[in-house]
Amino acid sequence: MSRFVLVHGGWHYGELWEPTATELRDRGHEVHHPTVGGNREGDDPRTGHAQACQPVVDYIVENDLRDVVLVGHSYGGSVISKVAEVVADRLSRLVFYNAFVVADGNSVYDEFPPPLQQAVDASAAERQDGTCIVTFEAWRELFIQDAPYDLAKSTYEMLRPHPVNTLTDKLDLSRFYSLTVPKSFINCTEDMTLTQLPEWGWHPRMSHRLGLFRLVQMRGSHEVMFSDPAGLADAIERASRR
Amino acid sequence: MSRFVLVHGGWHYGELWEPTATELRDRGHEVHHPTVGGNREGDDPRTGHAQACQPVVDYIVENDLRDVVLVGHSYGGSVISKVAEVVADRLSRLVFYNAFVVADGNSVYDEFPPPLQQAVDASAAERQDGTCIVTFEAWRELFIQDAPYDLAKSTYEMLRPHPVNTLTDKLDLSRFYSLTVPKSFINCTEDMTLTQLPEWGWHPRMSHRLGLFRLVQMRGSHEVMFSDPAGLADAIERASRR
Amino acid sequence: MSRFVLVHGGWHYGELWEPTATELRDRGHEVHHPTVGGNREGDDPRTGHAQACQPVVDYIVENDLRDVVLVGHSYGGSVISKVAEVVADRLSRLVFYNAFVVADGNSVYDEFPPPLQQAVDASAAERQDGTCIVTFEAWRELFIQDAPYDLAKSTYEMLRPHPVNTLTDKLDLSRFYSLTVPKSFINCTEDMTLTQLPEWGWHPRMSHRLGLFRLVQMRGSHEVMFSDPAGLADAIERASRR
Repeated sequence: MSRFVLVHGGWHYGELWEPTATELRDRGHEVHHPTVGGNREGDDPRTGHAQACQPVVDYIVENDLRDVVLVGHSYGGSVISKVAEVVADRLSRLVFYNAFVVADGNSVYDEFPPPLQQAVDASAAERQDGTCIVTFEAWRELFIQDAPYDLAKSTYEMLRPHPVNTLTDKLDLSRFYSLTVPKSFINCTEDMTLTQLPEWGWHPRMSHRLGLFRLVQMRGSHEVMFSDPAGLADAIERASRR
Repeated sequence: MSRFVLVHGGWHYGELWEPTATELRDRGHEVHHPTVGGNREGDDPRTGHAQACQPVVDYIVENDLRDVVLVGHSYGGSVISKVAEVVADRLSRLVFYNAFVVADGNSVYDEFPPPLQQAVDASAAERQDGTCIVTFEAWRELFIQDAPYDLAKSTYEMLRPHPVNTLTDKLDLSRFYSLTVPKSFINCTEDMTLTQLPEWGWHPRMSHRLGLFRLVQMRGSHEVMFSDPAGLADAIERASRR
Repeated sequence: MSRFVLVHGGWHYGELWEPTATELRDRGHEVHHPTVGGNREGDDPRTGHAQACQPVVDYIVENDLRDVVLVGHSYGGSVISKVAEVVADRLSRLVFYNAFVVADGNSVYDEFPPPLQQAVDASAAERQDGTCIVTFEAWRELFIQDAPYDLAKSTYEMLRPHPVNTLTDKLDLSRFYSLTVPKSFINCTEDMTLTQLPEWGWHPRMSHRLGLFRLVQMRGSHEVMFSDPAGLADAIERASRR
């Protein structure tokens, strides 16, 4: 039995982990999936990265969770990296599921390939409220191309605007890079969100920044949490077992 | 139900799509697989790229096909790119199955890694009739290494000499690169025809030239149309669904 | 029916092939798995690469084996390369299973990424007897991360210290690189021993040095010989069939 805290990515929120959480609970695990600051209904659209992390830290501390496997998806990788700096002694392992391992001093945005930076800029410029969205075309072709159309559509309709400051804030990760918590990286082999060009893709570019880490790979897109929650639960188990 | 026009690669011809076409028809689709100019019995061995494309354009127009998913394999990628420039309004999607996405102004030959260029040169020099062939050794190890020997042998015996001019003609693809037709790329993860060196392989080198595109991957060699036609039909469905 | 001679990697010895050999014998093949010099109990810890190869040459010659498929794993790739120079006429194919294809004039050590070089140096400096070992942490996360913990642990306990000279001896491979014996490379897609950075990984970096070769890929870590012996036996069959 493991104790998981699942941290969602940009445009997502805690409830969207439900299909994967159900799979993990069916396998006997304890699963938590709090929502990151800035992604809760009514949150300030100007939320920055530090404010984004605080609710996750609070959730772990207030519930006195220990021996936690802390899992981050996509943007959530930057959140678990900062959260780990604060609650390292409560963690048994960090699992990055196609998640940002941000270089010390960079922002998440700095790690985006130019076309994704341009898409975020364009959306932010159009919305003018501090948030950005993903177009359905990008969602369907780059995030969740392995799902039937109806699932791509229904999940798109559940997404929320994402606060841009959480993406553009520069992150001091010097403590993170000195942590000795064991680390894993789950790589979905059809993930296209960062392109699959070697200089921009998730693995090995992001993953190898972890130093010694455990690699688990599975078929599927960035959003296997929707298109293959059973497969993702299996990968999370393999990534986090002893 | 989709309407597919399947365009074969070098040394191939339309009839060789039969195993894959049967799989697609069994799934309820309409499937066409005309032969490219220069690959029909009796065609001029000096056929160039423009003449190669014309029979595919004619086939689509004369049969008044609309909402076509136009699929190209290997060299056929260069054919569907040029055909799309003429009949874009009849297409719902372009699907490249380990197929050339030629850089504007280049020939197919320009996209070959040096050893493949040398093999084509050597064969053309030996044959002296404007065509080139693939050796059985290359076919067995680089094109269809995932098949039993007997299938490798029987399919090799069905190949035809290929007109070199279709490979060496420079292609103006400026219109192609401005088309907004949705695009997909099917990548067979064991395809060795262009090597798997990042600077020469199919994906992401060729695929990323498509801009926004849908990636579908499957296990197998360049010739899954023979070694795994059911798997290829499944990949084509996933690549072309809404 | 094929005749296999399986050559193990560093820290391994012939008996460790038993799970894979059993799978191959169950499929009707003849299987030999001699131990390389320096890895037998009581062998000189200062054994060099030439001495390491000799027992394999002797085994093949003394048993008068012909039509041999010679399979090398990891460090064993360097051994089969040198053995092939001596007994080429007895070989039907060379199969490299995530195995070193050492550049002419290099040592195995020269092909290691810097962190692996440092790990070998540190272990050798600590042991002072001419051998080095792998830490359990590295074994579990980089060599056999796809196995349950108990299998990772039990296999770790079976490993032996490895003579450093076999890794650091420079190898003259000019004859090897002129051999026309057919060659295959089995790539386990989750193998992390050399990292998966393109400039350091097994495939295509090592594999492409073989020139024309047959690629077979399978899921799994460097140690599928323990974590998936049936899958490895299947890959060896596909790599070595006609």
